[in-house]
Amino acid sequence: MTAIAFAQPDAAILARRDAIVAGLAALVPSDVLITNPDECRAYETDAFTAYRRMPMAVLLPRSTQEVAAIMAFCQEQGVNVVARGAGTSLAGGAIPQEDAVVIGVSRLNRVLEFDRPNRTLKVEAGITNLAVSAAVAPDGFFYAPDPSSQLACTIAGNIAMNSGGAHCLKYGVTTNNVLGATVVLADGSIVELGGDAMDMPGLDLLGLIVGSEGQLGIVTEAILRVLPLAEGARPVLFGFDTSEDAGACVAAIIGAGIVPVAMEFMDKPAIEICEAFAKAGYPLDVGAMLIIEVEGSDDEIDFTLQKIVEIANGHGVKVIKQSRSATETAQIWKGRKSAFGATGRIADYLCMDGTIPTSQLPYVLKRMSEIVAGYGLRVANVFHAGDGNLHPLILFNANDPEELAKAEMAGADILTLCVEVGGCLTGEHGVGIEKRDLMPKQFTREELDQQMRVRAVFDPQWRLNPSKVFPLENRWMPQ
Amino acid sequence: MTAIAFAQPDAAILARRDAIVAGLAALVPSDVLITNPDECRAYETDAFTAYRRMPMAVLLPRSTQEVAAIMAFCQEQGVNVVARGAGTSLAGGAIPQEDAVVIGVSRLNRVLEFDRPNRTLKVEAGITNLAVSAAVAPDGFFYAPDPSSQLACTIAGNIAMNSGGAHCLKYGVTTNNVLGATVVLADGSIVELGGDAMDMPGLDLLGLIVGSEGQLGIVTEAILRVLPLAEGARPVLFGFDTSEDAGACVAAIIGAGIVPVAMEFMDKPAIEICEAFAKAGYPLDVGAMLIIEVEGSDDEIDFTLQKIVEIANGHGVKVIKQSRSATETAQIWKGRKSAFGATGRIADYLCMDGTIPTSQLPYVLKRMSEIVAGYGLRVANVFHAGDGNLHPLILFNANDPEELAKAEMAGADILTLCVEVGGCLTGEHGVGIEKRDLMPKQFTREELDQQMRVRAVFDPQWRLNPSKVFPLENRWMPQ
Repeated sequence: MTAIAFAQPDAAILARRDAIVAGLAALVPSDVLITNPDECRAYETDAFTAYRRMPMAVLLPRSTQEVAAIMAFCQEQGVNVVARGAGTSLAGGAIPQEDAVVIGVSRLNRVLEFDRPNRTLKVEAGITNLAVSAAVAPDGFFYAPDPSSQLACTIAGNIAMNSGGAHCLKYGVTTNNVLGATVVLADGSIVELGGDAMDMPGLDLLGLIVGSEGQLGIVTEAILRVLPLAEGARPVLFGFDTSEDAGACVAAIIGAGIVPVAMEFMDKPAIEICEAFAKAGYPLDVGAMLIIEVEGSDDEIDFTLQKIVEIANGHGVKVIKQSRSATETAQIWKGRKSAFGATGRIADYLCMDGTIPTSQLPYVLKRMSEIVAGYGLRVANVFHAGDGNLHPLILFNANDPEELAKAEMAGADILTLCVEVGGCLTGEHGVGIEKRDLMPKQFTREELDQQMRVRAVFDPQWRLNPSKVFPLENRWMPQ
Repeated sequence: MTAIAFAQPDAAILARRDAIVAGLAALVPSDVLITNPDECRAYETDAFTAYRRMPMAVLLPRSTQEVAAIMAFCQEQGVNVVARGAGTSLAGGAIPQEDAVVIGVSRLNRVLEFDRPNRTLKVEAGITNLAVSAAVAPDGFFYAPDPSSQLACTIAGNIAMNSGGAHCLKYGVTTNNVLGATVVLADGSIVELGGDAMDMPGLDLLGLIVGSEGQLGIVTEAILRVLPLAEGARPVLFGFDTSEDAGACVAAIIGAGIVPVAMEFMDKPAIEICEAFAKAGYPLDVGAMLIIEVEGSDDEIDFTLQKIVEIANGHGVKVIKQSRSATETAQIWKGRKSAFGATGRIADYLCMDGTIPTSQLPYVLKRMSEIVAGYGLRVANVFHAGDGNLHPLILFNANDPEELAKAEMAGADILTLCVEVGGCLTGEHGVGIEKRDLMPKQFTREELDQQMRVRAVFDPQWRLNPSKVFPLENRWMPQ
């Protein structure tokens, strides 16, 4: 997309390209290094965008030691490095650069150790999110953060973006579920951060790594907290006449101190798109819908649902439809989780990812419609309402540069609105390139400077995922 | 205590003492600056130790702006700063230094805003922990982390040490319950970190501040997550013949995926000491005791307790005693929470604070007894068993330098044991001075260097609580 601004490629690096590739070839087994353009093409973009850029080379190491050797070499040669999980990023975080090598972690995908009594699972960080839950499911456990892309996305990517998901309302996002990490720093040194205890002495560098978008190092192993599966769980669909009614109902449920395991919002366009794709049994005669899932024993579920139904009745609910079987439950979630894919079938879209205090939901939903309509575009809303994590999908035609520009302006207006009502620019997709130039709306110069100084401790040459997160013009360079 | 090593006081600062004090006097209202030795004496130590040292001056500012002005002045003058909450620190974190000024936050104690729908409370950070829960109790909420010192300790101190408490097993420690903070940096600039949304873009500097022991800045305001009070709660006492039996029972309960709201361990010496003080109805004919608290509706409590009783029966439980009233519940907790005070009435003690994987509890309890007995001393154990957070109290006579040395050696051996079994040096008391020289047992040189480089970003002159956390001899100084 035209709106994506990279820093200018470093001509000095590009001029040494052949020597760099030869050096890498001498360093790793031949199947670890990919330079063939046909094969590199699989890495030239991410899930977010039509924008494409070929990296200098792609490396797919098989061990922490290989990652360390590559990182040490890149430090010595001054080569930029873009880390990549599965490339499902929605904000441009994994987009390569022509003067950078991409280090993909997809081959680091083994389960290392399940410590059942301590309820922790040690994995290589390139394992997919879903494979983690699958590894512990036979013992009755699961890993809580569940991005919609969980079939493909990696734990390394989840850590880089502090990923969430529909079920994070109750169990927290990635930072609440990662206990330790093995990280290869910019100079190739390997550090262990955190551990499987509840606290560690000294500074919480693990917390700093989570959400750092590949700019502080590459996570190669992780110790994850896994949780006992609930006895049962049941989603219920609630249909409302308007988005505002549904938003007010969410705010009232949260305000009443009820914490369902998930509380997902879909407006009319999103319902129609997902129902057409997934045949999930969504009500088509309503203006907005909530999927509220409650878990526990049957009695607990009944008890909590009764309280939720009372609140919903007070907010003009029109349709209430409970799942009656595991199949129906799977259908309901399939509809929700396929929202992005299903939308992509009917239009190009820009998916924003702001977060707001839940009490602001009714107001923000109304303002978002007005903003997008003001640009002559349509929006479909499908998001994690319980924790106020918005995902407006702004629909447009990517072949029309003017529509793209309008969509991006509408997106920026929406994120600015999120900040204005006391929320923030991101929920779980990260800043990447998409929100980079909006960061000054969230932070003062002093606050950004402080973040950049900390970043520079880990990457003094500013070589790790260099064009992302911090605005290009005022990024801080160490003396 | 003789074993506490400060860096040598900076003679250049001490020589300018009068000028520095005069400068501070010109900066703040007269009642904010304390230089009178009689008044300063209240600040010359902390809860941990008999060690005393008078600060150059004590400042008790009333606003973030006053803190900022003092910090800017200290930066300009190169003066060290030790931040202080209520001085309940158990690891020497708040011990003053003669070449430093102490900035106490006790007057920053107002509740600023209760956002009920979003379940957040904004406070000035010098407010006491208990006052936070008191502020939201009328609305049916509470603040989860509950250090035993909660009547006195401040939120600022809780943030500095990442404090826990008996009820953190279910609800997490401070870092899981703080959403935002206003921090005055070393140069006097004021930054807002985090916010009341679930995630923020950019680096997680808030997570870095939590547990940083006053070395990155001074927290003056905080946004706290408050939780709905449970419908009910009931503690039960379980008595066992041996500590190993009780430890194995804890590991089995956690291993079964049950998460009580609290699971406290006391061995025979601790039971006797606490019962004599609090008349809590503890069984005196057992070798070890667990206090397990379960919360929810009466039915839920009964259901979960039944599962716990089954597991306890499988581990040779001898006594099971349920609380039958709110008064009994209060007595049971009073006994546990007064453990440190009650122990202090009968002997001097050194309280260690290591954390281990719960599966290692039986082994570690046995080894701790052997270690302490090997030095000819006694130990009382009272700790948060559910999350493996040990608090062995090593009893000794402080007037006997040899006993003190033995107690300290036993303490160091115990913490080393914690690291060896996969745990760590701290649970919730911080590193301070006490564990500073043990840090190389937990971290490699590279890992410590990385922490110190990050610390230096916030405090390049190494002036904030300078003698704490990092070993004096190899602390990293920026060029």
